[in-house]
Amino acid sequence: MIHPTLADIEDAARLIEGAVMRTPCLPAPRLSELTGADVWVKYENLQVTAAFKERGALVKLLSLTAEERRRGVIAMSAGNHAQAVAYHATRLGIPSTIVMPKTTPHVKVSATRGFGAHVVLEGESVADAQVGAERIAAEKGLVFVHPYDDFHVVRGQGTIALEMLAAEPGLDVLVVPVGGGGLIAGMAIAAKALKPGIEVVGVETRLYPAMWCALNGRPVHVGGTTLAEGIAVRNVGALTLEICRAAVDDVLLVDEVHIERAVNAYLTLQKTMAEGAAGAGLAALTTSPERFHGRKVGLVLCGGNIDPRILSSIMVRELAREEKIVGIRMIIPDRPGVLGEISTIIGDLGGNILEVEHHRTFLKVPAKGATLDVVFETRDGGHANEIIAALEGRGFTVERSESPDLDG
Amino acid sequence: MIHPTLADIEDAARLIEGAVMRTPCLPAPRLSELTGADVWVKYENLQVTAAFKERGALVKLLSLTAEERRRGVIAMSAGNHAQAVAYHATRLGIPSTIVMPKTTPHVKVSATRGFGAHVVLEGESVADAQVGAERIAAEKGLVFVHPYDDFHVVRGQGTIALEMLAAEPGLDVLVVPVGGGGLIAGMAIAAKALKPGIEVVGVETRLYPAMWCALNGRPVHVGGTTLAEGIAVRNVGALTLEICRAAVDDVLLVDEVHIERAVNAYLTLQKTMAEGAAGAGLAALTTSPERFHGRKVGLVLCGGNIDPRILSSIMVRELAREEKIVGIRMIIPDRPGVLGEISTIIGDLGGNILEVEHHRTFLKVPAKGATLDVVFETRDGGHANEIIAALEGRGFTVERSESPDLDG
Repeated sequence: MIHPTLADIEDAARLIEGAVMRTPCLPAPRLSELTGADVWVKYENLQVTAAFKERGALVKLLSLTAEERRRGVIAMSAGNHAQAVAYHATRLGIPSTIVMPKTTPHVKVSATRGFGAHVVLEGESVADAQVGAERIAAEKGLVFVHPYDDFHVVRGQGTIALEMLAAEPGLDVLVVPVGGGGLIAGMAIAAKALKPGIEVVGVETRLYPAMWCALNGRPVHVGGTTLAEGIAVRNVGALTLEICRAAVDDVLLVDEVHIERAVNAYLTLQKTMAEGAAGAGLAALTTSPERFHGRKVGLVLCGGNIDPRILSSIMVRELAREEKIVGIRMIIPDRPGVLGEISTIIGDLGGNILEVEHHRTFLKVPAKGATLDVVFETRDGGHANEIIAALEGRGFTVERSESPDLDG
Repeated sequence: MIHPTLADIEDAARLIEGAVMRTPCLPAPRLSELTGADVWVKYENLQVTAAFKERGALVKLLSLTAEERRRGVIAMSAGNHAQAVAYHATRLGIPSTIVMPKTTPHVKVSATRGFGAHVVLEGESVADAQVGAERIAAEKGLVFVHPYDDFHVVRGQGTIALEMLAAEPGLDVLVVPVGGGGLIAGMAIAAKALKPGIEVVGVETRLYPAMWCALNGRPVHVGGTTLAEGIAVRNVGALTLEICRAAVDDVLLVDEVHIERAVNAYLTLQKTMAEGAAGAGLAALTTSPERFHGRKVGLVLCGGNIDPRILSSIMVRELAREEKIVGIRMIIPDRPGVLGEISTIIGDLGGNILEVEHHRTFLKVPAKGATLDVVFETRDGGHANEIIAALEGRGFTVERSESPDLDG
C-alpha cells in the first residue's frame, strides 16, 4: 500500500488552510501539575464540528473528480466523521449521504442533517449500517468516504502533527487516541519525518484494544459500554495498521474510570470539554505518570462531543469520589424532632444537605424506627468524617452509602 | 486622576510577556449561528488561574520598589483576584496575604493557599474583610493590591484589547463583562486608541448594575444571588468610572436566566467552560441580537471558575428547558401492573426513564390510588408531547411537573 509522505501531508495542510481551523496548541500548567509531565494540549474540540475529523474528510473531498463531486459522497458513521463529511461536503456543494444505525441518538441525526446531509437510518448495528452504505454507494455510484482507512484521510489527519510541532518544536512525545488509526498514522508519519527522535504513543480504551491486539499479534477481543465511543472500533484499517507498525512506538490501554476522571480533569482544571476518546489520551498520563514524567507531551484533544447529561453525571460522580458529596444511611427513632436534630448537626458543621429520604416500610427497620438517607455537600473527606463523627457522638448509627474508594 | 495611555498598556504587554499566557482569540462559528453576530472569543479561561486577573495583578506587582516587594502585598478577594495575586507574588518571591470573608467556600481558600498566599479569614461580609485588610496593610506596611481601581491594574487588563485586535483587526465591537470596571477601562483605552471607530460595550448582571447606575447618575441599588459573582460589585472604581465615562459606549444589563443559558451555550456549543461573569458577555448577544447582528464581535471569556455542582445543575436545567428531560405527575389506580404499563408505554416510544416516585399519603390522592411522579429523557418537546399523548390515550391523567416556558 502507498503510504502518505511528509510532502503529502504538507500538501494537505495547504489544501485545508482557511477551511479547517488551525487550532491552538498551548501549555496546560494545571494538567502538568496533575500528571508530572510538561503537558501541551492541541484543541481540536474548537473545530466547527468540535472534532479533528474535518481535516481528513476535507482532504478526501478535495481529491474527487468533478464527476465524482457531482454524483456525491456517502459515509457510514454515527459520530464525528458523519458531521465532518456533511459539513464540508455541503460547504463545497457536494451532495452527501450519511448512513447511521437506527439506534443512533436523535441529537446526532439532527446535527448531521443540520450540516446538510441526507441521513439514512439503516440496520440495528454499525455492521448492518455499513452493509447498507456499501449497497447505496454501489447503486448510486457515490464515493465512499472511509473514516480512517484511506490515503487522503490519513494525510489530512497528519496535519495536526505539523501544527503541533510548529507551535512547540520541543515536544518529546505525542499522545494520540486510537480508534481505526487514521489520526495516529498521519501524525506519526509527519512527526517522525520532522523530528525523528520524537515518540508517538497511541491510547485505546481497554475495552476496545483493536490496534494493540493487531500490533501484538493477538486475537481481537472488543466489547462493552465505553465513554470513549469515538475510539470504540473493532477493525483497524489495513493502511493504518501498516503505518502504525512502522511508525508508532507504543499503544497504551486505559480503563474506563480513568477516562472518566480525565474528562473531568479537562473540564475542571483546564476549563475545556473533552469527549471520552480525548479523555483517553490524558488518562494515559495519569495512569502511567512515570513514563511521561518531566517530558514535554503533546496531547491531542481530538473532540468535545459528549452528551450533557453524561458530563453532568461525571462531574457529580467526581465530587462523590472526592467526598465532597457524601451519602449516609441512619436508622433513627420515629419521633418528632429527630430530623431537625440531625439536620442541625450537619448544618452547624458546614455541611449542606442536598437530599433527604425516609424509609419505614422494610422489616430491617425497627417498627418504631425509620431509615433516613441523607446526601450532603462537604469541603472534603476530612470534613465528611468530622460530620459523621459528630452524628455518631450524638448516638446515631451512621453507615456510608458507598465507599469513597469504590472505583478509583 | 492620571489615566493610562496606549503606550502604558503597550508597556504592560512587554512586562507580562512570557509570564501571562497570550491566550487565543478565535472565531466561534456555533456561537455566531446562535446569536447572528460574527463572534470571536478571547479565551482568558486558559490562564493558570483560569481568569484574566493575572494581567493587572502582575503589572502592579512589577511596579513595586525592592523595599515594597520585601515587605509584601495584601489583597482582599474571595475570587479570581486572590488567586492571581497569590500566584504571581509567589512566582516573584513576594510574600502575599489574602483576606477573605469567613464565609468563603473552602475550595477557594485552599486554591489560594495552594498558590502560596497567607490567607486570613476575617469578617462575615466582603465589607468587613476589606476593613480587616486595610488594618493589616497599615499595621504591617503591606502594599494593597486593589482588584480594579488602580493605574497599573487597569493598564494590565488593557493588554487583552491589544491581543484581540492583533488577532483580528476587523473587530467592530468588544463586549466586556463589568464588575469594578478595571477590565473594560483598560480595554477601552487600548481599543479606542488603536481603532477609534470600534465600539466598547460593557455588560452587567441586572442584579448588580453598579456601573450602569454610576454612568447614568442613578442611585446604586444592588443585591441578590447571582451566578456572575465575579462581577457582583457594589462600588465601581473612581478611576475606572472616569475612564468608562470617557471611553465606553454603552453598558447593557442581562438577566440571570440568560447568563445561565450562556454558560451552557459556551459549554455545549463552544466546548469551553465559562463562569457566570463570562456568560454575561454572551448573554448580551443572545438578549440584544439586533444590536450585534452581522457585526464582528469580540467577546472576552474572562474566567472559567465555576463550581462543578452548579455547572452540572445548569446543564440538566437546560435539558429540562429543551424538554429533553421531562417530569410528569399522574394519579394512578393502586393495583399491580400499572407501573409496568406506564413504563412500557414510555419505553416503547423511546423515552428513557430516569426517576420514579410513588406518593400514597396525601388526601388529594384517592384512597385506592397513588400519585406517580416520573422523570424521563426524550429527544425533544415533540417527542415529550407524543409520549404524554400516548399515556393520555391509555386513560391516564398526566400533569407536567413544570411548564417548559417557566423561565425563558
